[in-house]
Amino acid sequence: MNPDFRNIALVGKHHDLATGGAVEATREVVESIGDFLQSLGCHVALEASTARLCGCSRFAAWTVADIGEQADLCVVAGGDGTMLGIGRQLARYGTPLIGVNQGRLGFITDIALDQYREVLPAMLQGAYEEDLRSLIQGHVIRDGQCVFDTLVMNDVVVNRGAGTGLVEMRVEIDGHFVANHRADGIIVATPTGSTAYALSAGGSLLHPLAPAIILAPIAPHALSNRPIVLPDSAEIAIEIVAGRDASASFDIQYLPSLRHGDRIVVRRSQARVRFLHPRGWNYFDTLRNKLHWNEGG
Amino acid sequence: MNPDFRNIALVGKHHDLATGGAVEATREVVESIGDFLQSLGCHVALEASTARLCGCSRFAAWTVADIGEQADLCVVAGGDGTMLGIGRQLARYGTPLIGVNQGRLGFITDIALDQYREVLPAMLQGAYEEDLRSLIQGHVIRDGQCVFDTLVMNDVVVNRGAGTGLVEMRVEIDGHFVANHRADGIIVATPTGSTAYALSAGGSLLHPLAPAIILAPIAPHALSNRPIVLPDSAEIAIEIVAGRDASASFDIQYLPSLRHGDRIVVRRSQARVRFLHPRGWNYFDTLRNKLHWNEGG
Amino acid sequence: MNPDFRNIALVGKHHDLATGGAVEATREVVESIGDFLQSLGCHVALEASTARLCGCSRFAAWTVADIGEQADLCVVAGGDGTMLGIGRQLARYGTPLIGVNQGRLGFITDIALDQYREVLPAMLQGAYEEDLRSLIQGHVIRDGQCVFDTLVMNDVVVNRGAGTGLVEMRVEIDGHFVANHRADGIIVATPTGSTAYALSAGGSLLHPLAPAIILAPIAPHALSNRPIVLPDSAEIAIEIVAGRDASASFDIQYLPSLRHGDRIVVRRSQARVRFLHPRGWNYFDTLRNKLHWNEGG
Amino acid sequence: MNPDFRNIALVGKHHDLATGGAVEATREVVESIGDFLQSLGCHVALEASTARLCGCSRFAAWTVADIGEQADLCVVAGGDGTMLGIGRQLARYGTPLIGVNQGRLGFITDIALDQYREVLPAMLQGAYEEDLRSLIQGHVIRDGQCVFDTLVMNDVVVNRGAGTGLVEMRVEIDGHFVANHRADGIIVATPTGSTAYALSAGGSLLHPLAPAIILAPIAPHALSNRPIVLPDSAEIAIEIVAGRDASASFDIQYLPSLRHGDRIVVRRSQARVRFLHPRGWNYFDTLRNKLHWNEGG
Repeated sequence: MNPDFRNIALVGKHHDLATGGAVEATREVVESIGDFLQSLGCHVALEASTARLCGCSRFAAWTVADIGEQADLCVVAGGDGTMLGIGRQLARYGTPLIGVNQGRLGFITDIALDQYREVLPAMLQGAYEEDLRSLIQGHVIRDGQCVFDTLVMNDVVVNRGAGTGLVEMRVEIDGHFVANHRADGIIVATPTGSTAYALSAGGSLLHPLAPAIILAPIAPHALSNRPIVLPDSAEIAIEIVAGRDASASFDIQYLPSLRHGDRIVVRRSQARVRFLHPRGWNYFDTLRNKLHWNEGG
Repeated sequence: MNPDFRNIALVGKHHDLATGGAVEATREVVESIGDFLQSLGCHVALEASTARLCGCSRFAAWTVADIGEQADLCVVAGGDGTMLGIGRQLARYGTPLIGVNQGRLGFITDIALDQYREVLPAMLQGAYEEDLRSLIQGHVIRDGQCVFDTLVMNDVVVNRGAGTGLVEMRVEIDGHFVANHRADGIIVATPTGSTAYALSAGGSLLHPLAPAIILAPIAPHALSNRPIVLPDSAEIAIEIVAGRDASASFDIQYLPSLRHGDRIVVRRSQARVRFLHPRGWNYFDTLRNKLHWNEGG
Repeated sequence: MNPDFRNIALVGKHHDLATGGAVEATREVVESIGDFLQSLGCHVALEASTARLCGCSRFAAWTVADIGEQADLCVVAGGDGTMLGIGRQLARYGTPLIGVNQGRLGFITDIALDQYREVLPAMLQGAYEEDLRSLIQGHVIRDGQCVFDTLVMNDVVVNRGAGTGLVEMRVEIDGHFVANHRADGIIVATPTGSTAYALSAGGSLLHPLAPAIILAPIAPHALSNRPIVLPDSAEIAIEIVAGRDASASFDIQYLPSLRHGDRIVVRRSQARVRFLHPRGWNYFDTLRNKLHWNEGG
Repeated sequence: MNPDFRNIALVGKHHDLATGGAVEATREVVESIGDFLQSLGCHVALEASTARLCGCSRFAAWTVADIGEQADLCVVAGGDGTMLGIGRQLARYGTPLIGVNQGRLGFITDIALDQYREVLPAMLQGAYEEDLRSLIQGHVIRDGQCVFDTLVMNDVVVNRGAGTGLVEMRVEIDGHFVANHRADGIIVATPTGSTAYALSAGGSLLHPLAPAIILAPIAPHALSNRPIVLPDSAEIAIEIVAGRDASASFDIQYLPSLRHGDRIVVRRSQARVRFLHPRGWNYFDTLRNKLHWNEGG
């Protein structure tokens, strides 16, 4: 075993645990992966809330901070959502992550549950591809004060209130006025987020290594109001100008009741998340499979 | 004067009146149009809420029902929104409408305030183009009961709740399953509505005389989930399958808190609205001007 | 056997035959379908060019005109392209068509080769769904003379020449000027064609029963230049104004070297093609399958 | 006068000159700009083909190579097309360019003809904004040999032949297979080119400082085949797999008759073009004006 990956933390699929349905299934999955890693000579810990929620006491229970400080590697049993959630929390520590997917393969989690026994040993020996993902930092500025800020892996979204017509947003980039956008909302996405909501809104795909951010309006009133790709050094400010009950989302964190004059400010984060994939992995293979390119030909 | 247009009702811009700002301006506009029409020998009445809100007692005050039953023509001073609002209410009576626009010309209201003295006399003599617009009837079915129904000129929109991810909707047409759409929402639009929200969502334009309805998803999860144009005989049912706090809008009427299992059903209405335009008017001229086609060439 | 379907004509996949590759396969397919139909008591003829190209003399050889005049039904072994080609030729006769597909199922040909023995007997007894498709008539007018005209099932396309920048086209509808479009080209499509090239160019889908035609620009210079759906009564004229070597296509017929001033005129045809599908067939099932809707859910 | 800008070369609008129509107008424009620059103490030369075509012998005639080697600044009288053409030729020399526009203002040429007397003196003193634009290098590889290569400011486009159905292209990025695209063609565009053809084809806008390239299919057969933004370090290879008479364009250079197996390879160029704009210029102002954002609001 590669001494680089001696201490391994396991994380399970959180949100299903909360609803209770999949507790049993998750415990089985994390226990079998954990046993397997121990059999390879690794020290295995289980993320504390996973341990509590699925009632597993077989491994040491570590908080996310423990994992960040002590784990050499984090293995996540879940889908892209789980992976992005824990990835965001571990970004500041630089802990690499590997995803084992219980359901359909995702953009990031690409090791099927029935394949990890074949795939993980080689990866632990160093046979992996590194997939660095950039993050952005989202802030809400109200009356000159920062009232909220958080790291974001996918996107910051400003949305109109329900049943209230358009929201009007003044967009500035690096202090320059861009336009007053009237739309259902606007999305600021990382390359990772470019395959999610921004794609549905008409944005182009961004390769993970493109040092760029995409700003995509949602159902804009003006037809020429097209998505724009910015250098990742850009500071994007979105000010709520008109429209009732606008809200903002930062990945899955939701901030309702924005006021006129509130500014949502987005900047590149210095942190990056390190996802590891099996040797031979390539981003374009994932893209082709997930988007069903070449199905007919 | 054409005896067909002896009794003329005037309607002013309602929503501005409510906020008070434009009361004075609206009174001046309706009084000057009313005086002018009287000078041409017409009998002029003022829609009752316009009269009350702008404090004008110079003309008889008629309810919308009075107008529908007694007026030969309705002249609307306002924008497309005002015109569509009163048009919807008068649809059952067949009363023709002419729009005089205080601001930028619209898709429907195409007589500028400083032009009506030149344009109206000829129109009252019969020199006009008729522009028939179809309507749709929207219903909400809950537990097998119709709990809401209304006439719609632009669109019926089903939307996800604020901050709650996608809404999943089961779409059926004439009783046939079409698909489970996961999206921000879905729009069912008339040709009149095809230049509004449906256009922002990526729908094609529908000529007013195309006997058709367009069904356009908003930021759909599946990229192949494209807008579809249906014969206007189609009955469209949209059932809320998943997602919290979905809502529906019927033009500007808003219905929050839809439940799973609620069905929004849309059918063609037999009613049509008759807009009258100055002789020589053509839909394509309006479209070209409003969409800024040929600006560069 | 339904006496309505006593005389049945068979048609094979032409264009593959021409290249020689699939001669053997096509002969086997048409012979086995023909034998099967004879065993049901039908009189079977083979379309003459199919017979000649695949060297099959087992059945009477009928020209397309013979088929139109004498056949009660035409069974086509091939894909959508073959089906649309023969359908266009039989449109004037009203001969119904059934498609048996050797490859992937299409939008129109939905009986797999290994299923026809189960499906055809019931259809011949009258258990089928009828799927009427409208056609358009395309004309080229040069110096006031019609120099070309043809029936079209999918689309009329005007295209720029290779390597020559945009083509500029003056579009008129029912004699009214619409706009000068500068684009790679423009597509006029039937509902049948709306799932083909027009869809790739950003057009909405049109239900086969929508009495409508879609006009979709290809990569237009002006972003607001969106596809427009017209009533099928519309006469569309596209005049070549600028750009070298513009061409026009009418389904698969190609007309190069259009000149400035040439007008491509498109009108509804009175003819309709009758496709027959197995009982229970529904357009939306086909659409959902072909466009991979609901794959993830 | 800023000694940095002592030797100034003038370039006129070439392609109009070739057609003869605007010879007189161009001579007047370049002579009046030249006289003005001389009056400011600059040494002025005229690009040789401009001089020959408009018959102007008032200034020294310099070839493009002379300009690159000896001029401190190049002032271009023409539109974006002229500016991009000469910019591409001067890229290797690093000569800065200023555009004076005779017609409508462009994305790059933003000094109107009646304003240059006010604007140029300050710019020559150093009061300008620099607008660096990246270029790409396009190559055609046939049978392992590079048979064509050139610098490109806007885009490399691979297109299907006229009247020949789709072209099928195998796309590889950095040696990794991406997909076989079937489409009308594919565009590889710089940020500068992202406001041109790529935008019409549905691509997102790219800020000039985004170190990125966009790959946008034209009317792709597969609806999920969306534009993708790549880091500018990417090497993109497009191989012609199927389809007759495919061609490639490199800005305005056109290469017909590509063969199956030909590979069009695109890489970042190290060269950059330096456009100078009046003090206070900002990219977003240009974008907002050119795309008519905020016209209604």
